[in-house]
Amino acid sequence: MNRAHNFNPGPAALPLEVLQKVQSELLDFAGTGMSILEVSHRSKDYEAVHNAAQSLMRELLGIPENYHILFLGGGASLQFSMVPMNLLGPGVSADYVITGAWSQKAFKEAKLVGNPRVAATTEEDGKFTRIPKQEELQLDPQARYVHITSNNTIFGTQWHTFPNTGNVPIVADMSSDFLWRPFDIKPFGLIYGGAQKNLGPAGVTVVIIRDDLLALCREDIPIILRFKTHAKDNSLYNTPPVFAIYIVKLVLEWIKEKGGLAWMEQENRAKAARIYGVIDSYPEFYRAPVAKDSRSFMNAVFRLPSEELENKFLEGAKAHRFVGLKGHRSVGGIRVSMYNYVPKSSVEELARYMEEFARAHA
Amino acid sequence: MNRAHNFNPGPAALPLEVLQKVQSELLDFAGTGMSILEVSHRSKDYEAVHNAAQSLMRELLGIPENYHILFLGGGASLQFSMVPMNLLGPGVSADYVITGAWSQKAFKEAKLVGNPRVAATTEEDGKFTRIPKQEELQLDPQARYVHITSNNTIFGTQWHTFPNTGNVPIVADMSSDFLWRPFDIKPFGLIYGGAQKNLGPAGVTVVIIRDDLLALCREDIPIILRFKTHAKDNSLYNTPPVFAIYIVKLVLEWIKEKGGLAWMEQENRAKAARIYGVIDSYPEFYRAPVAKDSRSFMNAVFRLPSEELENKFLEGAKAHRFVGLKGHRSVGGIRVSMYNYVPKSSVEELARYMEEFARAHA
Ligand SMILES: Cc1ncc(COP(=O)(O)O)c(C=O)c1O
Ligand SMILES: Cc1ncc(COP(=O)(O)O)c(C=O)c1O
Ligand SMILES: [Mg+2]
Ligand SMILES: [Mg+2]
Ligand SMILES: [Mg+2]
Ligand SMILES: [Mg+2]
Repeated sequence: MNRAHNFNPGPAALPLEVLQKVQSELLDFAGTGMSILEVSHRSKDYEAVHNAAQSLMRELLGIPENYHILFLGGGASLQFSMVPMNLLGPGVSADYVITGAWSQKAFKEAKLVGNPRVAATTEEDGKFTRIPKQEELQLDPQARYVHITSNNTIFGTQWHTFPNTGNVPIVADMSSDFLWRPFDIKPFGLIYGGAQKNLGPAGVTVVIIRDDLLALCREDIPIILRFKTHAKDNSLYNTPPVFAIYIVKLVLEWIKEKGGLAWMEQENRAKAARIYGVIDSYPEFYRAPVAKDSRSFMNAVFRLPSEELENKFLEGAKAHRFVGLKGHRSVGGIRVSMYNYVPKSSVEELARYMEEFARAHA
Repeated sequence: MNRAHNFNPGPAALPLEVLQKVQSELLDFAGTGMSILEVSHRSKDYEAVHNAAQSLMRELLGIPENYHILFLGGGASLQFSMVPMNLLGPGVSADYVITGAWSQKAFKEAKLVGNPRVAATTEEDGKFTRIPKQEELQLDPQARYVHITSNNTIFGTQWHTFPNTGNVPIVADMSSDFLWRPFDIKPFGLIYGGAQKNLGPAGVTVVIIRDDLLALCREDIPIILRFKTHAKDNSLYNTPPVFAIYIVKLVLEWIKEKGGLAWMEQENRAKAARIYGVIDSYPEFYRAPVAKDSRSFMNAVFRLPSEELENKFLEGAKAHRFVGLKGHRSVGGIRVSMYNYVPKSSVEELARYMEEFARAHA
């Protein structure tokens, strides 16, 4: 089997060992004589998986008991609406920090169901190349929450340090950097993210919500859209995305076996250092627009001196089985997505290709 | 491998050949060197699957071009809210026909976002044992739609003939009998169903919506909850549940190879006839409460003369690897779910077990 070097921006690479395990037990899960695709979500066999996924996540991230961990369908895009739908209302505002395309989308949905405001934006001519400094944030101490997008997948920026929001809880879209490293969850009232970058396959979205925010959640909205509904029933109010949650559980086990998030962070920093190291060795060739203190460890974006060279770069990448390097259509150029399960060896091969290519064309 | 006889009510049995195909290509999909779990939803390889799932469905059901076929996350329970959220509004009513627990849930959500009314209900003392006759339906000719639940999974009743609703489009929750047989889609304005009974695994919900209803859909609701959003972008507005849609595509191919829905109907009628045949041979023992003209071909529900005998029945079932026969907690007793991909051979073994058990205990 000729495994590709998967730099897709999401869905993305999964650990090979996890895929092999899924494959080996696909026809007979836990001795049931059925596939995990065929078991009841209300069976003991599945509930063990469902609950293990939560407890592993709690363990890896040190999530205290006053947080619920939910598994929902509909994508992070549904959360753009569900979060403000549950938490905003007449006379209730929230602060949004705009740092990229996804935070713009989150703010747009929030405006439809409440009265949020922009606390800061780093947009310039439709582009985003940095994370704002603390002093730039015009925070409302009465805000229900401050919304950030921890990693801006399209523009390649990432919050290296989370903002100080005083007593106001942070709500974070962590779709594209969740679990890249350990972090202190206490300032966060709610975290959400689609699994399909750093956690599992497309099809499940994780929502982690603190009890005080849960208590404030509205009950005058559709039952299926209430966080309270899903928290009360351990995400089993209706049929959850069973298979995606099963894979999440296997991925979390894999991280734990490797050494947890401390190990994960080490790997991620090494991978990013390798790629940015090449970029910084050829700054006139690999043109990285992002401010150094805002560089994303997950998505490195850059341009080449011409579109012709960019096309040549991508063409040559194919021969090496590097997949997914084309930058987002709104940005152009190249984007190296090096999520958690992209092997260091793939990153090493790409780095060498980049060095050769620069030497050959600079 | 000792394959169980899977009578689970959903998630449910899938064709073994489909599971084997998924297993064989799990690590390398279509020569990409990646799993289907790892490819981009915006890649040509996945879009071919995404579009094939739709065209196969169109072909099998004879769905004309003036219907969109959508693949959404969130379950059929999200559709309970999304349908009226898109279609109801000030001065706009809809008729709901209440025939079981799921139609009660659909009506409950609809009341939160609009002003629907009950056109008929067959509830008696909290139970449902029949489908209403045409004369019982008190239909409003001004209704935006008439909502029915085509198969009542919990109570074991099913619409054998769809109601005549005049010019008013039918909206049907077909979660537990979609694709059991061919049918004329033209009276339907919208059909929805979670895949996890008759179509695939948990994780994707199909919504089929006719153009005239789509044109009426609201645009003053969250972007992610608008049918127009998903129709315009071929269900690729955000990341779809890739793997679940891939399995749906394989299942539809399997049906086509076997002979399409005409073949499927034949199989389903034979399976149901076998089980109801045993029930009707021992009517004092296998006590089926459902009116004969309302019997579900998908879920046969019955009680035994005592709970002790029911427990004995279920206990003995285990030795035969019959899974999922316990009736829903709100109904008790036994429920035989014989969805599309439950093999006739499993139904035959269960029928023999039922005959032996009745002879031994009657
Ligand atoms: C930061 C971020 N938020 C949200 C989304 C949208 O997620 P989904 O496609 O699961 O709705 C994405 C990308 O897909 C993303 O990168
Ligand atoms: C008829 C019917 N409608 C709706 C549902 C709810 O579907 P979901 O769990 O996908 O939300 C079910 C069962 O799960 C059902 O049987
Ligand atoms: Mg962005
Ligand atoms: Mg709880
Ligand atoms: Mg029912
Ligand atoms: Mg269209």
